[in-house]
Amino acid sequence: MSNHEFYMKLALDNALAMKGQTDPNPLVGAVIVNDNRIVGVGAHLKAGEPHAEIHAIRMAGEKAKGGTIYVTLEPCSHHGRTGPCAIAIVEAGIKKVVVATLDPNPLVAGNGVKILKDAGIEVEVGILEKESQHMNEVFNKFIVENVPFVTLKSGITLDGKVASHTNNSKWITSEEARLDVHKLRNENAAILVGVNTVLHDDPELTTRIPNGRNPIRVVLDSSLRIPVNAKLVTDRKAETWIFTSENCDPLKKEQLESLGIKVFIAGRTQVNPRDVLNILGENLVSSLIIEGGGTINASFFEKGLIDKVILYVAPKLIGGKESPSFFGGTGIDKMANAIELSNMTVTPIGPDFKFTGYPKYKD
Amino acid sequence: MSNHEFYMKLALDNALAMKGQTDPNPLVGAVIVNDNRIVGVGAHLKAGEPHAEIHAIRMAGEKAKGGTIYVTLEPCSHHGRTGPCAIAIVEAGIKKVVVATLDPNPLVAGNGVKILKDAGIEVEVGILEKESQHMNEVFNKFIVENVPFVTLKSGITLDGKVASHTNNSKWITSEEARLDVHKLRNENAAILVGVNTVLHDDPELTTRIPNGRNPIRVVLDSSLRIPVNAKLVTDRKAETWIFTSENCDPLKKEQLESLGIKVFIAGRTQVNPRDVLNILGENLVSSLIIEGGGTINASFFEKGLIDKVILYVAPKLIGGKESPSFFGGTGIDKMANAIELSNMTVTPIGPDFKFTGYPKYKD
Repeated sequence: MSNHEFYMKLALDNALAMKGQTDPNPLVGAVIVNDNRIVGVGAHLKAGEPHAEIHAIRMAGEKAKGGTIYVTLEPCSHHGRTGPCAIAIVEAGIKKVVVATLDPNPLVAGNGVKILKDAGIEVEVGILEKESQHMNEVFNKFIVENVPFVTLKSGITLDGKVASHTNNSKWITSEEARLDVHKLRNENAAILVGVNTVLHDDPELTTRIPNGRNPIRVVLDSSLRIPVNAKLVTDRKAETWIFTSENCDPLKKEQLESLGIKVFIAGRTQVNPRDVLNILGENLVSSLIIEGGGTINASFFEKGLIDKVILYVAPKLIGGKESPSFFGGTGIDKMANAIELSNMTVTPIGPDFKFTGYPKYKD
Repeated sequence: MSNHEFYMKLALDNALAMKGQTDPNPLVGAVIVNDNRIVGVGAHLKAGEPHAEIHAIRMAGEKAKGGTIYVTLEPCSHHGRTGPCAIAIVEAGIKKVVVATLDPNPLVAGNGVKILKDAGIEVEVGILEKESQHMNEVFNKFIVENVPFVTLKSGITLDGKVASHTNNSKWITSEEARLDVHKLRNENAAILVGVNTVLHDDPELTTRIPNGRNPIRVVLDSSLRIPVNAKLVTDRKAETWIFTSENCDPLKKEQLESLGIKVFIAGRTQVNPRDVLNILGENLVSSLIIEGGGTINASFFEKGLIDKVILYVAPKLIGGKESPSFFGGTGIDKMANAIELSNMTVTPIGPDFKFTGYPKYKD
């Protein structure tokens, strides 16, 4: 590890420690080094409070002068509560700025660096860039595209199945894996299933860990088949949003709305996944986890709408031509066009394996 | 690691180094320790040559007296080329024998230990037992059951598919994974596919690595649909054995036999996988690798005939309800009866992952 990476890693560690408390702002960390000694560290703690650079500059005091600042995200160029960080860096007399990654927002990207360079400060961009981008993957997508970052989660057998040919699915994965799923729910603003899952399992889709935050529960239901006595309708443990089509029964829609459920129209005869994401984005939902069946999953995969895949793979085989797989539908036509998962990681979790990767779609 | 494990590990390493050259004998290693110093090491090198214990005793010479011998397999009690090893150990004046595992052959198991104990020698069994059994897994099954040790190999997408819905399958796994498959072929006495694979791919099923040994090529073909111009029939690169049913066309059978192909009847109307294994065992085939499609694989899984599973899992998704999985057929009825894979290991191989495990079947 170079010195640059060493200091940037410390900035990243400080940024990451604030995970969950900076919303809707990204995680950012900063470290100031002068004469080979660390003279300041900082992190963004909470929206409305100073940015990471400001905390680090304050800690460094006079020792910031002539120093190098490492910051995990391009210093801002706009006037927030504490003024643009790029200008604060100039005023502190810092001589060099090392940035992990530019601000992803195309309206901003590069402007912070420009202010610094115009002031004669040396700027280096790209140290631990991927790590920084990964840390703010949800923010980075939402700020640019205004639709949620979409994670698909499934618990499968090693042969890719989510149930046997008799539709039995309890249980595929271990308790340890199922606990991890609740952490994912805690980290996501919304959770999505199809109405078949509601009809089959009557799930709560809540976060069952201490101090867990329940995501908004999203159901795709083209013809409003959801029973009015489903837990998602009656339990009031979290909001439930139903996405349906213009074809739905208007009386059922009114009935659900009178029970406190939000109902959105997202398609003419069938719910259109892309419309669902647009509507969620308009409603400031920045992250979504899909825990659907094979058909729902396929409808998102086939339109290229999944950003991240998390699979809990149990060391079990269930077999069967008719046993449902986690990715149903028509599927991709040939291997050359298969969805590749990049940056794949595999970690053991109880007796199971957790695969995490990022789909790359062919046209 | 205890001292016992340290010395046994050395014995195992010596045994393993001879992999591929001891057939039809098992791999065995031995280490003699006296007064905390290693005074002899040995391994079985080749059938017809001395056993591991004899080599170690010869190396130790006088220093064997009063020592401890570590041996990866129970010393034999029968008269081979060099007499029973148990008696050689007694005669060498060895005071203690540490054994990894008993001889699996029920006709022998424990007899070697009995000779030693009767002579007043202290015997300890079970140090690194699993490692020793794993090393000789093929031998251990064949010597007891007289049917081959069956490994099922498949290259699959992360969603368990072996082809797209259009039946395209080139390529799922990486070159690195496909090279590893050739090492498996080299280690197995026979390779098995269904006739559909022959009709679809016209494969050679040879070992394409330097000095590779070609396995016997076994085709299950209930009604002898194999074309007489298939490479497996014409190329003479290795033996081809076809297993068919009593229903087959006798003229086609004669035609194939006249081309040098062995044809076995193994079932009335359909080939029975269990009969196939019995016939292979009678013909001294001790190891078999199955590279079948979903139907062939299912027929062996559903009868509990697979001993080991090796899956090369590509970080790709192909999806599709109709896309074939590697384990087709009817499948297991419910999750509680799923085939669990024990002693699962996962290793990266190129961009892919190699999963190895041992199926445990529920009744």
